[in-house]
Amino acid sequence: MSGGVEWALHCCVVLTSVREPVPAARLAELHEVSPTYLAKQLQALSRAGLIHSVQGKSGGYELTRSPELITVLDVVDAVDGPAPAFVCTEIRQRGPMATPAEACTTPCAISRAMASAETARRAALRAISVADLARSVESDYGTGALAGMGTWLSTPAG
Amino acid sequence: MSGGVEWALHCCVVLTSVREPVPAARLAELHEVSPTYLAKQLQALSRAGLIHSVQGKSGGYELTRSPELITVLDVVDAVDGPAPAFVCTEIRQRGPMATPAEACTTPCAISRAMASAETARRAALRAISVADLARSVESDYGTGALAGMGTWLSTPAG
Repeated sequence: MSGGVEWALHCCVVLTSVREPVPAARLAELHEVSPTYLAKQLQALSRAGLIHSVQGKSGGYELTRSPELITVLDVVDAVDGPAPAFVCTEIRQRGPMATPAEACTTPCAISRAMASAETARRAALRAISVADLARSVESDYGTGALAGMGTWLSTPAG
Repeated sequence: MSGGVEWALHCCVVLTSVREPVPAARLAELHEVSPTYLAKQLQALSRAGLIHSVQGKSGGYELTRSPELITVLDVVDAVDGPAPAFVCTEIRQRGPMATPAEACTTPCAISRAMASAETARRAALRAISVADLARSVESDYGTGALAGMGTWLSTPAG
């Protein structure tokens, strides 16, 4: 998993705390990270339809829908792509005792085992929404923790 | 996940079909793969205590314990290491609105979400043993499929 996922999730969580679009530069400043690097993650979120950019003087990024409807899996897939970690290369079809191709119409047992783990991982990531994360931030650091970041984000820089 | 996991799992499954140690070269030949490459995976399995090498004329590798007691997770960890895919870099402690270090004694919500997915993935991999995989091969390709490989592996090359 790329480091980009962590930045993208932090951006989604803090975007729940604002009513107005937030400039990418302001998100980068909040997180003390290179704007160029963060822009890459924001573009991935945008391509996946999780955030969109609003043009204009008070433009910036905002979530496209309720954070209840954005799962952690949505963010992970947006940044890293939905390709599974394990790719079967059909080892069973190799060598002197190869299984004939016509007997290989379904995935082999090893491939199925890996797929079951991937399914379990994805289900766990799908079970948690960005809204859940935001609520956890409040319960971890006290009510107002996230609101404070929202106020900071909504205050023009300078 | 590295491609080595797939080779290592195939080796473990075919090793359930033999009573005698199998030379690494014979395993490589069965799978039509470079002996040097396969040796790397076999060494990883050996370091993790899942297989061990028997020296001598009829030497080679064998499983160290019943395949019922070797899980897919054991093999994945042996080859790729047990490090989780997600590594938290404590983004919450960065920037002008940083959470103070003393409030960060437990993992943040994002880190916990990722850990829950990793736990689910590992549980799924732990739930399947090499013996389960061997049984699946039999049920997929007919009784005797794996035994046939065992006979081939036990027959000296040449």
